[in-house]
Amino acid sequence: MSAFHSHGRGHLDGPVVVFGTGLLGASIGLGLRGRGVPVFLADPSPTNQAVAVDIGAGRPLSELEGAPQLVVVAAPPDVTADVVQRALGEYPEAVVVDIASVKLAIQADLRGRGVDMSRYVGTHPMAGREKSGPVAARGELFTSMPWVLCPSQETSADALQTARSLAGDLGAIVSQFTAEEHDEAVALVSHLPQVMSSLLASRLQGTPLHALSLAGNGLRDTTRIAASDPTLWVQILGNNAAKMVDILHGVREDLNRLISTLEDPTAPGARLDLAQLISEGNAGQAKIPGKHGGPPQAYSWLTVLVDDRPGQIARLLTEIGEIGVNVEDLRLDHSSGQNVGMVELSVMPNKHDVLVEALTDRGWRVLQ
Amino acid sequence: MSAFHSHGRGHLDGPVVVFGTGLLGASIGLGLRGRGVPVFLADPSPTNQAVAVDIGAGRPLSELEGAPQLVVVAAPPDVTADVVQRALGEYPEAVVVDIASVKLAIQADLRGRGVDMSRYVGTHPMAGREKSGPVAARGELFTSMPWVLCPSQETSADALQTARSLAGDLGAIVSQFTAEEHDEAVALVSHLPQVMSSLLASRLQGTPLHALSLAGNGLRDTTRIAASDPTLWVQILGNNAAKMVDILHGVREDLNRLISTLEDPTAPGARLDLAQLISEGNAGQAKIPGKHGGPPQAYSWLTVLVDDRPGQIARLLTEIGEIGVNVEDLRLDHSSGQNVGMVELSVMPNKHDVLVEALTDRGWRVLQ
Repeated sequence: MSAFHSHGRGHLDGPVVVFGTGLLGASIGLGLRGRGVPVFLADPSPTNQAVAVDIGAGRPLSELEGAPQLVVVAAPPDVTADVVQRALGEYPEAVVVDIASVKLAIQADLRGRGVDMSRYVGTHPMAGREKSGPVAARGELFTSMPWVLCPSQETSADALQTARSLAGDLGAIVSQFTAEEHDEAVALVSHLPQVMSSLLASRLQGTPLHALSLAGNGLRDTTRIAASDPTLWVQILGNNAAKMVDILHGVREDLNRLISTLEDPTAPGARLDLAQLISEGNAGQAKIPGKHGGPPQAYSWLTVLVDDRPGQIARLLTEIGEIGVNVEDLRLDHSSGQNVGMVELSVMPNKHDVLVEALTDRGWRVLQ
Repeated sequence: MSAFHSHGRGHLDGPVVVFGTGLLGASIGLGLRGRGVPVFLADPSPTNQAVAVDIGAGRPLSELEGAPQLVVVAAPPDVTADVVQRALGEYPEAVVVDIASVKLAIQADLRGRGVDMSRYVGTHPMAGREKSGPVAARGELFTSMPWVLCPSQETSADALQTARSLAGDLGAIVSQFTAEEHDEAVALVSHLPQVMSSLLASRLQGTPLHALSLAGNGLRDTTRIAASDPTLWVQILGNNAAKMVDILHGVREDLNRLISTLEDPTAPGARLDLAQLISEGNAGQAKIPGKHGGPPQAYSWLTVLVDDRPGQIARLLTEIGEIGVNVEDLRLDHSSGQNVGMVELSVMPNKHDVLVEALTDRGWRVLQ
């Protein structure tokens, strides 16, 4: 694994062909068009393709003359290997990349078909939105987001450089993993959170309304991604099934241990078992890096009470700017039925006390 | 269940005795002292008690003359019933409330001891901080947060009114549940999210650093509460064990079904099973009420790119104020290594398009 925090060492000239004009394909088209790269689009749905052309993501593929430099396969995971194989055959000079969220199954599929993979690079831009389709596309979708390149042993240096230029031209932060490393990594940091959030939210289906009136940020945070699209996630989970099964066996062991403990909570050792579960969660959570890839837990938090009306948060942040402190992260707290807002701010630890004192002096109600 | 969104119908005169000067006990003392109510404090730890006195949360209990109006038991859940029983005996005129996060086990324990519960009210202020101890105490900790009252059948109307005045005087949003309803509700909206977050974060313990570099907001949101205090959660889960076991059996059924499906992902019906899991999560998530207890999912989101330096977010919010739109929720996106910030804003749906257009006109880069 290696990471390139530069934006690539070369730029695309095009033409670039994009197969699939959903959210990601159309966003790639828009982003490249914004850099002046000629883009040609095709989609099995004539409507999708027409919308993508209309919003300026590129011209119809039928208008392409000459050979493309790069073909981007932005199809659903299930059909990606098919489309990659066809593209490699149809454009014998082009580099072909795909952008599916799983990499090993596609690579294995292509290898099983005997495809020459020297011109192919599997990639995964980790960007998305809760909306889908070309209407939701934005050329800046990939700005500052991770984009993982997963070349195989057969991938040529030229092909890899072209893939890197694509991600770099679109403003992404490029890193390189093997397909195996990638699928293992996203199973833990992306697919497992999705599954756990869905399992949790699923339990709320029968919850009475008065119970939900007690919902706080803990519940909201843990269930936010449970709103994700079933169609896409069926394909992602199905194509990373083996890695997920390994991880979920571990979850099941922990869950079984927890249930046994709670079935007899006064047994000797029960309290220790519960403490261990929570402590292991502490340890795992502490490993997650902070903003800008900085060390985890590097910031200090404080909470400021504000009246819940327009302009209050702006005024608060303006004053924090005057005080000269940079806000690293910011969240609004929403208790059901409140008429004061709670603004949670994180700052560098050495700025915490300064800021609390200065805000208090200016009349803000600071909780921490 | 009934809810009182007023701040109670009477005020406390005191004296109030607070047993236990941790975060919550000391915060109750501070809040009441801020309203001029005489408060007297006791804690098994002389250091904790001295700190609480020093920060102005009350005077030492030894200085109390006469009979208290109210005794607040702010002890850990495990010893709460003991302390409540002693307080009822020691102060035969006082109302006694406790503030533990679980209610049924304590009520049953007191009933088992043959305690006359007419002057006792179990309550649960749903407020907290990631720090603990009296040093972290704040008089405003309960402002606009839910505070559940759980009277038993024996509780007198007078005692209930005194408990309501306590919560109301501290600015909380008061509601009334039976102890059974309360424990069922918090099992789903508070204890289950904690368990699922801990189970998820626990899996990250062995994750290689390169994998964690791909962590996004999905992982951060779902694991934030996994940083919670093991000592407290052992007592909470241990005292709500039966309700948790019921819910966790449901989780285990879903998890077993998911693992079976992923072990044979090409079997007939496998895709449908996966889609069902995600769809059930969609349905549960959609039930969670929005800010101010409003209907769930009532807001539209947009994302604005800002330079990651002081003052940019303040400038953005000032301009949104000028445009005349109220921001309902706000989050900062942190991709590892980025040098542009993403500000996600939610607004009323009928303001979404207006705001996107106005911000774009003013030169902001809006993603949605």
